[in-house]
Amino acid sequence: MLKKVENFEWRSVCPISSALDVLGDKWSLLIIRDLIIHGTRTYSQLLDAPEHISTNILAARLELLTKLKLVQRVNLEGASRNNAYQLTNAGADLRPVLEALGKWSGLHLCGFHSDIVKMG
Amino acid sequence: MLKKVENFEWRSVCPISSALDVLGDKWSLLIIRDLIIHGTRTYSQLLDAPEHISTNILAARLELLTKLKLVQRVNLEGASRNNAYQLTNAGADLRPVLEALGKWSGLHLCGFHSDIVKMG
Repeated sequence: MLKKVENFEWRSVCPISSALDVLGDKWSLLIIRDLIIHGTRTYSQLLDAPEHISTNILAARLELLTKLKLVQRVNLEGASRNNAYQLTNAGADLRPVLEALGKWSGLHLCGFHSDIVKMG
Repeated sequence: MLKKVENFEWRSVCPISSALDVLGDKWSLLIIRDLIIHGTRTYSQLLDAPEHISTNILAARLELLTKLKLVQRVNLEGASRNNAYQLTNAGADLRPVLEALGKWSGLHLCGFHSDIVKMG
């Protein structure tokens, strides 16, 4: 009988659904964004992103992304061992997803920040 | 003073972050997927997706997607009024996001369904 990863389950065989099983939350792709932009980030630097991720969410997401081999721990010179994070090739391959999201957002949400507050 | 939409807040001015404010969950893009594939879906048909979305999550996501004008209610002939859902142009423009997610998933998660269960 196959073991399961704790708190992790594939919902269906659909590739889009599987991608969302891994990345379907408000934070994982923002961590990927920061690692694409900066190459290497320490935990503290990731915590400093303008969206104010909480430390427990950041730790949990980094743990899952590392397990899934989208992110890897690396050694920064002059600091303690394995104290920073980089994308693996699989993680870096998410760039087109972020580009598509950013392009869509620029087209359809830009200017909407002020509209939406009038909808209540 | 500006009103706020209940349970909704933009975290930053980053377009990727804003896109995830709207779509950063495990279900919204699956609803978009089903509407892209089928054109029009009733609530019951959306509920029948293989990922077993719960009725309260489906209702909440449809309400937000409709408020944000990514989805619109339409009338299906021979049924009660406004009983089905279609994408607006803004919703349909999410197709490249889904394509990028599906392509990435096919490259990096395909075959991983069996690997991940050995990691526990």
